[in-house]
Amino acid sequence: MIFLTVDNAMTPAVRTTDGGMTACDVAKTLEDEHIGSVLVCDSDTDEIRGIVTASDVIRLVASGADMGSTTAEEFMSEDVVTTESGTSVHDAALLMREHSVRRLPVVDDGELVGIVTTTNLTHYLPRLRNTILRERTERKQALTNER
Amino acid sequence: MIFLTVDNAMTPAVRTTDGGMTACDVAKTLEDEHIGSVLVCDSDTDEIRGIVTASDVIRLVASGADMGSTTAEEFMSEDVVTTESGTSVHDAALLMREHSVRRLPVVDDGELVGIVTTTNLTHYLPRLRNTILRERTERKQALTNER
Repeated sequence: MIFLTVDNAMTPAVRTTDGGMTACDVAKTLEDEHIGSVLVCDSDTDEIRGIVTASDVIRLVASGADMGSTTAEEFMSEDVVTTESGTSVHDAALLMREHSVRRLPVVDDGELVGIVTTTNLTHYLPRLRNTILRERTERKQALTNER
Repeated sequence: MIFLTVDNAMTPAVRTTDGGMTACDVAKTLEDEHIGSVLVCDSDTDEIRGIVTASDVIRLVASGADMGSTTAEEFMSEDVVTTESGTSVHDAALLMREHSVRRLPVVDDGELVGIVTTTNLTHYLPRLRNTILRERTERKQALTNER
């Protein structure tokens, strides 16, 4: 299969929290776990309520807010754009562009199964190029065999 | 030309500063200018001394440092990995992966000419896919013509 789907490129583990985590603890989590976002989920239903990314923390720092008392639900981005594991990597890239986001939580039948980011897609990019090169070689071979 | 070079994907404008900008002002700059990093350059020679990214600001927040008094040169990342405008997008992607970075300043003959990020490369990805599809069509056509 040449055009991979999102589940081949995504990070399967997603860090979630309820809305009460402070901005300072969000920053510590991003730093300690080497991740770019924390998903804010409803503690009862597990439903995604929002996402806090590095950009959201930056916005908060820029506003001069107190990082020790502002909670995730106060500065999270709502209306999270998601995708599904069977979506093509190509469509995920287009979706990111369209919505100007760098990460898409991956949700299958209401269940959070991973997250796909611009970094994941960048690491996937060389594989696409290798596909082009391999196909070219095969084409030359096919044309040679035809003769 | 099918395999684009970095200058086709990069952002040509790069925000620079000397080392004295405070962390709070760095955050404001990232937020106001919708960018992910500020390059710290020597004010006399223009040489790149370091880079401050959203991740660096996050690290600083996590450490509990005072955002209003810590300056860029105190928390910037040094040893900046750069690329050149003539480098292939593929090699730039590999370089990012190798060094675990999401942005590469583009430097030609000592002059800073742009920056290329994982977001730039993600926006470029659908073009690679279209290339594969077009080449397949051409191959089919070529094989049909041979017969």
